[in-house]
This record gives sequence, structure tokens and C-alpha cells, in this order.
Amino acid sequence: MTTVNDRTSASVHDESAEPNTEPTDEEIFGAHEGGKLSIAPTTPLTRPRDLSIAYTPGVAKVSRAIATDETLTGHYTWTRQLVAVVSDGTAVLGLGDIGPRASLPVMEGKSALFKSFAGLDSMPLVLDTTDVDEIVETLVRLRPSFGAVNLEDVAAPRCFELERRLIEALDCPVMHDDQHGTAVVTLAALRNACKVTGRELSSLRVVISGAGAAGVACAEILDTAGVGEIVVVDSRGVIHSERDNLTPIKAELAERTNARGVTGGLTEALSGADVLIGVSAGQIPEELVGTMAEGAIVFALSNPDPEIHPSVAGRHASVVATGRSDFPNQINNVLAFPGIFKGALQAGSRMISDRMKVAAAEAIAEVASDELAADRIVPSPLDPRVAPEVTEAVVKAAREDGVATA
Amino acid sequence: MTTVNDRTSASVHDESAEPNTEPTDEEIFGAHEGGKLSIAPTTPLTRPRDLSIAYTPGVAKVSRAIATDETLTGHYTWTRQLVAVVSDGTAVLGLGDIGPRASLPVMEGKSALFKSFAGLDSMPLVLDTTDVDEIVETLVRLRPSFGAVNLEDVAAPRCFELERRLIEALDCPVMHDDQHGTAVVTLAALRNACKVTGRELSSLRVVISGAGAAGVACAEILDTAGVGEIVVVDSRGVIHSERDNLTPIKAELAERTNARGVTGGLTEALSGADVLIGVSAGQIPEELVGTMAEGAIVFALSNPDPEIHPSVAGRHASVVATGRSDFPNQINNVLAFPGIFKGALQAGSRMISDRMKVAAAEAIAEVASDELAADRIVPSPLDPRVAPEVTEAVVKAAREDGVATA
Repeated sequence: MTTVNDRTSASVHDESAEPNTEPTDEEIFGAHEGGKLSIAPTTPLTRPRDLSIAYTPGVAKVSRAIATDETLTGHYTWTRQLVAVVSDGTAVLGLGDIGPRASLPVMEGKSALFKSFAGLDSMPLVLDTTDVDEIVETLVRLRPSFGAVNLEDVAAPRCFELERRLIEALDCPVMHDDQHGTAVVTLAALRNACKVTGRELSSLRVVISGAGAAGVACAEILDTAGVGEIVVVDSRGVIHSERDNLTPIKAELAERTNARGVTGGLTEALSGADVLIGVSAGQIPEELVGTMAEGAIVFALSNPDPEIHPSVAGRHASVVATGRSDFPNQINNVLAFPGIFKGALQAGSRMISDRMKVAAAEAIAEVASDELAADRIVPSPLDPRVAPEVTEAVVKAAREDGVATA
Repeated sequence: MTTVNDRTSASVHDESAEPNTEPTDEEIFGAHEGGKLSIAPTTPLTRPRDLSIAYTPGVAKVSRAIATDETLTGHYTWTRQLVAVVSDGTAVLGLGDIGPRASLPVMEGKSALFKSFAGLDSMPLVLDTTDVDEIVETLVRLRPSFGAVNLEDVAAPRCFELERRLIEALDCPVMHDDQHGTAVVTLAALRNACKVTGRELSSLRVVISGAGAAGVACAEILDTAGVGEIVVVDSRGVIHSERDNLTPIKAELAERTNARGVTGGLTEALSGADVLIGVSAGQIPEELVGTMAEGAIVFALSNPDPEIHPSVAGRHASVVATGRSDFPNQINNVLAFPGIFKGALQAGSRMISDRMKVAAAEAIAEVASDELAADRIVPSPLDPRVAPEVTEAVVKAAREDGVATA
């Protein structure tokens, strides 16, 4: 009972030699006809005997066994390798609040990635409500149907409360990927960028531009990982404890970050900083990046338009990363979430702890370490070594944290 | 946009020549390890280009198209061929109220059957609540996630209210299979039993023993199909309009059936009757069957123990059917539900009308007609001709009923 089943997992190969021409609309819409997922029995039902085993009368024995001992559920159903991909469609890609139906192709894509990269089953559940109480209540009622919850494309700041409430209410791993998937890969990239530029996390001065889902989670994980100084800037300027009208999550950030008490805006924050992490969708002028420390590190992660074009940032920074596949150093969540969920499920953990997230980041960084260079601080999103390494690291961290049950 | 996708549907063959020895516990539990279902992408994600089409950035175009025109959802997501198999685990097989977790292997089996027989995708959703309001509310919130609802193993009389409420609340096909799947196959069997014994539905005197989910639905469909006389008997005796303390559903039955006003018990009801349909789990003594009309028809459908053993019933009846695979004439829901849901989805119908159910029964009966005999009144559950014929008949009936949109 210690391994998650890998059946029908598609293998993933990096064929970077192949020209990645832009797909046509015809190709894209054609590939979406009838959707992108299919549910099938793990063994075919072709003979009367198959029916007697998988359905009546055989299945009654299995149901009776679970009724007697509910801890057998994970063993005799698909829930132990099943992630619910849950969204209300309020912050879908760069498209914003387009509703649950329009979000469904993205959730189907996410489920396809779970299978392709980690062999996990997953079901998209898109909700026709944006009320936190109602979403929590719905998933509590559905709890026997799945093994974990990947929260996706829920708008900030509601996503923070929703994730917290779900973690409290559900006895299974819950993670909002737009927060923590991004944060984990960012930490992995930052570790390797430090190696390339000869820095230590503990002496870094980091500026995060943007205090949405990704910005808040990045601040948290960098703090957990021991980054020296973190300053977060939102549309109103630097977040500090003297600022008025902070939302609860930003008030928390103000407590936890900006120990020097920087005030002002991005100009004040960036002056002399080692690292800029852009997760804001706003543009950052070249002049500001020019005021950063020698050999700066710039992650301009907004998609599809980075906060600053990497070739422009490269005039001032030693390491540049974006969220895009057509530039070097792509910060892509797919490096993190398949292995994180697989590790958490495999460990039988009820939660995804800070240590598990940091361990995932270290594993991702480690995979890139043998070919480390300024333009290779993270593995390719299709690198098949990543998910198994992340899984193993997450299982180990869950055991060290005492949250593993398997 | 008029066909439901058949991808990865497993073919089903009737290999009745093969000895159907009873599976061992080891085989049964082994086949359930890790569950019986797997979700996979319909096309593999192995190249960067695949990711750009199925996930970012390509998927954004599809999401934007649906956001502009929600009627495209069915075309570009898997919902149009996706059935939610929903249960609260309160009436699971013969096991009773064993809860949602223990019901899950049955729901996974049901999903496996949907795929194997009709190529439909389906996701088991088991609910940790038995409250009708809460179940309805949950499915309303999840409505964008699926294309139809197969309600399963919900206890009577709550199942009647729940199905009615869901039909009102959801703009998609909803059917409680334990009611209508059983009723449809029973009607199919009865049509052919009439042919074999030279009777007409309109002149039949039918007694239904049991007024649970299956009994009530059988009474309804036989009435719709024009059966001459229907008398329903529950544990307190014959249901008639003068009886005290009838539940709402039984009061409705009393209005619709028993025109002669029979009173008393099974003894009074069966005397001279042409047909006995047992859906009660109670035993029926041979003497009573002996009082039925010459050349009687007996369907003893309780599982695993028929109300009367078929060899005993056969001493008095010309046609005998059961719910079991080891006797002739197995009344098995799998003959009905795959084609009914596929037809309803293919027709783009918001409902499953009476006419669609009767059409399904006629199609099932028709498949058995070329080899019709007293011990072959229904096709084998594995007959691959059945689901396509039922689908076609249901689509046609939906169009005739004016409920089809495709």
C-alpha cells in the first residue's frame, strides 16, 4: 500500500530538437472537440466473468469489506490516486473571471498533465458558485469521492481564505497551485540562480512585484527557505506595517517581510536589490532594473507578457527567467504540482506542509544542477526525471514532518 | 455536433461458451486494488507542441470562445459525453445503507459499464450527506462539470423526491437507474413474454410485488405502455385508494393503478393474474403462483435470492425471468442505461421522457426477437447490438417528443 499506481501513464519526452511552430486555431480547436479526457476501466469488461468481478455479484464483497473498515477505501477504490481539480473560473490564465464553463478546458488540460507527468487520475470539478462557504461545503459533501484537491484559477484574495478553509475542513492534501506551484518552482529557480551568481539565499535582498496568489505564496516560501530580505510591492507601493487599509493577508505579509521597513514604491524597493520577482502583470521599466545590484537576478513571470522583456532585462541582470516556453529558464508549475500531489498521496499525508514544498523545490533545482548555467537554472517542463524526484523528496519530507501515514 | 464520441470504448463480446466459474475472493479483491477506473488524456502530451495545444497558451483560445458563447461548452469539453454517477450509499445492492465510501466500488463498476457498453465517460460522485436539499444543491453547484446524472443506490422513498427535484433543478438528463433502468428492461421482457404466450399488453392483469424504487417505476412504465390492469402489493398488502397512511408516492400509485379496486394481500391479487413481477426481496410461496392464470408469466427479480426459485415457478408459469446470470432470461439494467444516457446526450435532450424509456424497452425487445423463445425473452447483457439500438431508438423518441436539440 505504499505506492501510487502508475497505470496508463503516458511517457513524456523532451524533443527540444523539434521545431515548436505555433499551433493554428484549427489545430487547437480540433484537438478540443469532445474534450481532452477519457475515463476507462483499468481492465476491459468483455466476458461475463469480468462483470461478475467488477460489478455484481463480486463487487458486493469489496463494498462489504469497506463498510466494515473504512480505512480500506483508499486501497480498493481509485481515490488514493485521484485529484479533484477544482475551480470557480474567476481567475483563469490571463483571461480573468470567465466563469466555470469557460474554465473547463483549462481544468481538463490540468488533469491531462497530472496523468502525463505523474500517472495520477484527476477529475475537473468546476463550480457554479464563487461563495467560499458554498465551495467548502460542496467539497466536504464530496469528500468520499477523491483523494486530494488541486485548487485552480480562483481569484485573490478569496483564494487565500478558500485554501485555508479547505485545509481545515478536508482530511486530505489541498493546494492552490497558482500560489504554491509557482512559489515552489520560483524557489527552485532562485536556488540555482544563486549558485550561478555565487550568492547565498540568506544574504539575498528580494523584491516581489505583485501581491496576488503567486506573490503572496512566493513571499511565504522564500521566507520559510531562509531568504535574507523580502520586500513585496503591490499596485499601491511597498507593503509595510505602517500602511493603511491592508487586507488580512497583506497585513500578515507586512509582519513577515520588509524587516528594514522600506517604504515608497518599486523604485525605492529595487534600488540595490539582488532579485526581482515579477508576478504582477504590470510593466517594469528598464531604468529600475538598472538600479539593482551588480549581477542581478530577474524573474519576469507574467504571461503572456513578461514585466520586462528578457533581452532588455539581460542588459542589467546576470540571470533572467520568464513563464514562457520560447525564452530560456521557463518557470512552469508543471515542474512541481504532479510530483507534489503524487508524493503527498503516496505518503498518505493529510496535508502538504511547508517542508514538503521546500523539498519539492530542492528536488527540482537538483535535477537541473548537472547542466547548470545562467540560461539553464530549471529543468525543461518535459524533463521526465523531475516528477519522480519531486515525488520521492515530498514523501521523504512528509515522513520527516510526521504527517505521513504510509 | 450530433454524435457522442466513442473513443477508447472497449468492445464487448458475449462468450457464453466460456465456463463462468465463480470468481475467488482473491480474484475479486485483486481486481479492485487501486480502483477500477483511470482518467487519461485523449491524445498523449509528449511534445512541447502538445502542451501548447492542450494547455497554455493554446487552451486560452478555447476558453475565450466558450466565455463568449456558452453553448460551445458541450462541443469543446468532455461534458457532452460525461455522466455523473451519483450516490449517497443508502441502498447499495442488497447491502442497504453502507455509506458513500463503501458504495464507491459499485459506482466505479457502473462507470466501467458506461464506457464498455456505450463509450460514455462517467465520474462517480459519492456524497457524504443523505439530505435531499443538500444533494440537489451540491449537484446544482457542480452542474457545469457534467452532462447527465445517473442516480444510483439511493433508498426509497427518498429516491423519488430526489429524482424529481433534480429533474426540476438541472437542465440535463437525470435518471435513477434502480427505478427506470429496471422498469425499462422489465417492459422489454414483458413485451416478448406476451409474444411467446400469445397475449397483448392491453389485456394483461399484472401484479407487482414490492413498492420500492423498482416497483413504483415498473408500475409507471407499464401503465404508460398500456398494460390493462396493474395491482401493486407492498408489505402491508394491496395498494388501493381506500388504504390509510399511504406515502405520497403510494397515493399516486393508488390513483393510477388497481382500477378494479382489489383489496387484501398477495393472495387476492395473484388469483387469476397473468403476470407476477417480484421486486420485493420477500419470498412468494408456490401455492400462490399456482392460482395465477394458465400460461402465467413470472419475473422474480430480487437478487441474489429470487422471490421464488425459477424451477419452482416454472411448474406453473410458461415464462420465468430473474435478475441472475445463472438462470435464463436475466433482467439486467445494463441492457438499458448505457443506451438511454447515450441517446439522451446525443439528442441534446434536457430530459429522459416516458416516450424515450418506452422506446428503449421496444429496442431491447426487438434485439431478442429473432431468436425469441420462452427462455430467450431478453438479449444477453453482453450482446453488443443492444446499446446502439437503444441509443438510436432513444434519439428518435427524443426528436418525436420535441425534447431533442441536436
